[in-house]
Amino acid sequence: MDSKLKTLLFLLFSIFAILPTSISFKQHPLDSLTAAEFSLVQTIVNESYPKPSNLSFHYVGLDEPDKAIVYSWLSNSSTKTPRRALVIARYNKQTHQIKVDLAKRSIVSDKVYEGNGFPLLNEDEQSAAANLVLEYEPFKASVKKRGLNLSSVVCSTSTVGWYGETESKRVLRIPCFYPEGTVNMYLRPIEGITIVVDLDKMKVTKYNDREIAPMPKPEPTEYRLSKLKPPFGPRLNSSATFPAGPGFKIEGNTVKWANWVLNVGFDVRVGTIISTASIYDLDMEKYRRVLYRGFISELFIPYQSPREGWYHITYFDNGEFGFGQTAVSLEPFNDCPANAVFMDGYYASKDGTPVKTPNAVCIFERHAGDIMWRHTETEMPGDTREVRPEASLVVRMVATVGNYDYILDWEFKPSGSIKLGVGLSGVLEVSPVEYTHIDEIKEDQYGTLVAENTIGINHDHFLNYYLDLDIDGSTNSFVKNNLITKRNTEFNTPRKSYWTVERETAKTELEARLKLDTKPIELAVVNPNKETKLGQPVGYRLLPGSVAGPLLGSDDYPQIRGGFTNYNVWVTPYNKSEKYAGGNFVDQSRGEDTLLTWTNRNREIENKDIVLWYTMGIHHIPCQEDFPVMPTVSGGFEIRPTNFFEYNPVLKVIPPEHIQWPNCTRKH
Amino acid sequence: MDSKLKTLLFLLFSIFAILPTSISFKQHPLDSLTAAEFSLVQTIVNESYPKPSNLSFHYVGLDEPDKAIVYSWLSNSSTKTPRRALVIARYNKQTHQIKVDLAKRSIVSDKVYEGNGFPLLNEDEQSAAANLVLEYEPFKASVKKRGLNLSSVVCSTSTVGWYGETESKRVLRIPCFYPEGTVNMYLRPIEGITIVVDLDKMKVTKYNDREIAPMPKPEPTEYRLSKLKPPFGPRLNSSATFPAGPGFKIEGNTVKWANWVLNVGFDVRVGTIISTASIYDLDMEKYRRVLYRGFISELFIPYQSPREGWYHITYFDNGEFGFGQTAVSLEPFNDCPANAVFMDGYYASKDGTPVKTPNAVCIFERHAGDIMWRHTETEMPGDTREVRPEASLVVRMVATVGNYDYILDWEFKPSGSIKLGVGLSGVLEVSPVEYTHIDEIKEDQYGTLVAENTIGINHDHFLNYYLDLDIDGSTNSFVKNNLITKRNTEFNTPRKSYWTVERETAKTELEARLKLDTKPIELAVVNPNKETKLGQPVGYRLLPGSVAGPLLGSDDYPQIRGGFTNYNVWVTPYNKSEKYAGGNFVDQSRGEDTLLTWTNRNREIENKDIVLWYTMGIHHIPCQEDFPVMPTVSGGFEIRPTNFFEYNPVLKVIPPEHIQWPNCTRKH
Repeated sequence: MDSKLKTLLFLLFSIFAILPTSISFKQHPLDSLTAAEFSLVQTIVNESYPKPSNLSFHYVGLDEPDKAIVYSWLSNSSTKTPRRALVIARYNKQTHQIKVDLAKRSIVSDKVYEGNGFPLLNEDEQSAAANLVLEYEPFKASVKKRGLNLSSVVCSTSTVGWYGETESKRVLRIPCFYPEGTVNMYLRPIEGITIVVDLDKMKVTKYNDREIAPMPKPEPTEYRLSKLKPPFGPRLNSSATFPAGPGFKIEGNTVKWANWVLNVGFDVRVGTIISTASIYDLDMEKYRRVLYRGFISELFIPYQSPREGWYHITYFDNGEFGFGQTAVSLEPFNDCPANAVFMDGYYASKDGTPVKTPNAVCIFERHAGDIMWRHTETEMPGDTREVRPEASLVVRMVATVGNYDYILDWEFKPSGSIKLGVGLSGVLEVSPVEYTHIDEIKEDQYGTLVAENTIGINHDHFLNYYLDLDIDGSTNSFVKNNLITKRNTEFNTPRKSYWTVERETAKTELEARLKLDTKPIELAVVNPNKETKLGQPVGYRLLPGSVAGPLLGSDDYPQIRGGFTNYNVWVTPYNKSEKYAGGNFVDQSRGEDTLLTWTNRNREIENKDIVLWYTMGIHHIPCQEDFPVMPTVSGGFEIRPTNFFEYNPVLKVIPPEHIQWPNCTRKH
Repeated sequence: MDSKLKTLLFLLFSIFAILPTSISFKQHPLDSLTAAEFSLVQTIVNESYPKPSNLSFHYVGLDEPDKAIVYSWLSNSSTKTPRRALVIARYNKQTHQIKVDLAKRSIVSDKVYEGNGFPLLNEDEQSAAANLVLEYEPFKASVKKRGLNLSSVVCSTSTVGWYGETESKRVLRIPCFYPEGTVNMYLRPIEGITIVVDLDKMKVTKYNDREIAPMPKPEPTEYRLSKLKPPFGPRLNSSATFPAGPGFKIEGNTVKWANWVLNVGFDVRVGTIISTASIYDLDMEKYRRVLYRGFISELFIPYQSPREGWYHITYFDNGEFGFGQTAVSLEPFNDCPANAVFMDGYYASKDGTPVKTPNAVCIFERHAGDIMWRHTETEMPGDTREVRPEASLVVRMVATVGNYDYILDWEFKPSGSIKLGVGLSGVLEVSPVEYTHIDEIKEDQYGTLVAENTIGINHDHFLNYYLDLDIDGSTNSFVKNNLITKRNTEFNTPRKSYWTVERETAKTELEARLKLDTKPIELAVVNPNKETKLGQPVGYRLLPGSVAGPLLGSDDYPQIRGGFTNYNVWVTPYNKSEKYAGGNFVDQSRGEDTLLTWTNRNREIENKDIVLWYTMGIHHIPCQEDFPVMPTVSGGFEIRPTNFFEYNPVLKVIPPEHIQWPNCTRKH
């Protein structure tokens, strides 16, 4: 048999070998709600409330079936699975949590939430509140007093946080801007006016024109290519097109690529959700579970100016504004490369009607020029050089929450590694000042002079990832491998010291709460019930990336609400109701229902179904390069198999054929 | 004018706009020695020593001209620049440092080095020492006693370190292996024999057959595709080819890409050297200096077994074995993508003859699917969405130092960011054991059972980068921006706290030596003599990556030698003779001439020509996935402009045309 034929047979063999028998492409029980299902939810809920109702939808999403049901469906796709939606709605100034059975077309339960905090803001009420101000006479007078043209004013919304009030109302602050020819409104704030709108009453309830602040110039804020002036540059090549196709298959929301199968969901609150990600084990001839469900559970951005107009800016972007609601349509070729496949996202508007965000998620095979593994044998005879180029699967979305653009990537590698990437771009939040040179600045401005009359305010970004790892099964443990220096007392060698590994299994939540510091440690989630042939419990380890802790006082209100930043690593026993590190009802929350308060119960986590929570942080001191739009700053972390496989799971990757495509016709 | 024509004109304009006037493509004064120059050095040196001489070359490389001369050549390429070589050679058991003037064909100086430590090992003496053992009768007896076939034995070399001896000889330990059908010799060590060869005498000076150790099986160690058995997988696509060409120009060793111009050198000791990297400023219409010279100055890998046969394994790969000497030929398509351009590397063999490593360095434009910057304006009317896809230039080499493969990347971004990437692949160093299951292990084995009879020994990788940043000129300062929590006492708002930035300029070396920990800090090298229009000193900041510190006792010999791991960040005044963090003569060094000892002098560094040194570290607890060849583990860090530019330097990038290439002919 010649070697080409042999290779071909191996290829065919391997294609068949990795074809799963247990994966069905029926609707996955964790598939996000479809447009039709959103409409059905709207109909069912509206039918049960008196008409005309002032019901306002704030969250509509999948009410997940129990894990056991999902797993039994995965092993037998004829398993009956429920299909339910969770609705959070406001009705008569109360927050309702409504569960809807889609198959039975009925409401299963409808409970009024009595606790503190309010649900996700919907887009309609935010734009209503912002537009209200434009009609408000005192505001018109303020605009006139500043010599501005009302028709050019744009208002936005800002959450108010919680600062010890004992009674909270659903209110927003309304920051306004004067773009005047630029689209970069955030760099042209009209500062000095406090405007508060009550959302339940939908009226201005507080108004205070404190001072007339300077206004930065509009011209340098422009970033649209069509409006920029030469010289342009630098010139860059386009990426290549991929005649080979996307490299993966999508059926429903299930993506099958290389040795991975995973479900890609989309939720109005958290954006992309990865569910039931499993990796194929060539030797075991089966898919093995890695991640049951993963998503960004909260994003906290405390700004660092204590001034009126600024002190309250401590956003929880996920729970207040929604990563799915703020997801933007991705631009082919630029947001995602030529070989990307796009998925639309849906969420409910205020009245429950499905809103479609076209191309909200993209999925692409990344060929970044990295090396999966290699070795050149330089000491043995023969010319042994074996190299496998890296390829990975990226699932991307971008949430543009007002000024900031968050580029949110899940990257799956054939080695089993999962990389979580965050890119920050977009526009700074700035405070206008009279200064045009730093020598004029005599007092702390709480940020950097990034352009004339423009202070980019210092702030942090803290992202918390919910990672319900089910490593080769649901019962897992969290292990801390401590690297400990030892003195050499045993061997008669001149070596005085070495480090060794002391393994510690966290028994309870408090033992798993960790601030990552210089203490050397390797953290892993393992399955103590599944061992390799050598006897190691199979596991995945955490490789932290950019680590940052909170700098606010622990008694400060935003920090009480953002307690999930107190530690970088947390482990909880799986509890379907604990999803959001900052709590379920985050707008004006009081920190009573957060990852910090849950874990204070110190529940047992050993050999249980557990969830890993990871908080990453970036302190951002703005610089001039961030103006008028920021080059992406990247952060992230990785989880990676450790004794999960018997040996290198990509050892037997066949290097791809390197096809050249000559005689092409150039076509734009 | 129609918009296509307009775009075309802009393109042409921008191409001309960025054409440099001051860059010449004559031989750059920092260009590495050519093959002809190596031969000339050999001739000149040999002519001055009596024949037949036993002179042995250990280092031949460029003797850098003074910085002032290089900069004056850069501004006027008719400036006369010297062309000299530095030779480190052994002659009559002494180490000579010889400077050779290539233009004058003469030796400028020849000094005997009297200090401790020995030069880089050359390949020839290493293979001579290894082969010597195969002829050594007691070793033949040991092989026979073990029932092994001598013709299948392969020996290698291992440096001995320094453990307090007052007299040192040039010796190596010789580890031997029994591949027996596999090429993965490192996983088949013949343990239990201590063999020491004296390199000056070239004879075995110590031999001790201590014990017969177990031998792991050869079969699972195989990694060559041609020898592996099905099932294969997962299947992966090839990356695309780039009909647009490489995207950069190379003349001599100078690479011009996008807004960057830089010189790529190759040195037997440090491998790739980046010199005079400058970035074009569109507004200033000139290139601005960023990096005068950067390379990996040392790599320290202490293994963590105190046992005989292992305690001494604390390699300094760079100063003992040489990253250039161990650089391997890169495989097109697999080590570097389809659009890569390759450069050969040269170094001198023992007798001074130039040795060519074909394709030792590759340079490619990376299109990884990332986003350079973006913003969708969701609150203003109109459909504003501006996205620029990221592209970068990668300069890569791979050093295979015995078992380990180090993938070493320099990545330049149009935003001015430089990312330093390290990928670890290759094969573990293992100790054979009798165990086939972890339950049998009762005592510390100093590593992980990664396969039957095979312990992967715990170890660290510490890399030190030499970064002679010349930010917009040679006189720079090192700034620590400390993030400090403050209480809000000034404003009548309910916010209790915030953080602010306290800037501190390091005056001396000790003020700049830093262990990176949880203390929030932003570090930057700035030019206090060059300000932006707003008055900020122009600068570059450091974004640390994987941080790890030493775990050996500070009194332990390897740690005394590897003192550059004591801190992550160091700043020294520029001194042409301080290049290698572990010292110049590292083999059996005693830690007397290292970054630690230099900085203990606590020289002044404010507003001077300074060098930033960065030590990154990875603690490696092996796992089964690392067997028989490791999936790449990546680390790295970034330097990035901070108030270097007046505004975002990639604001005016024109998004590349997305060319599709249909009607292609498939060709392998």
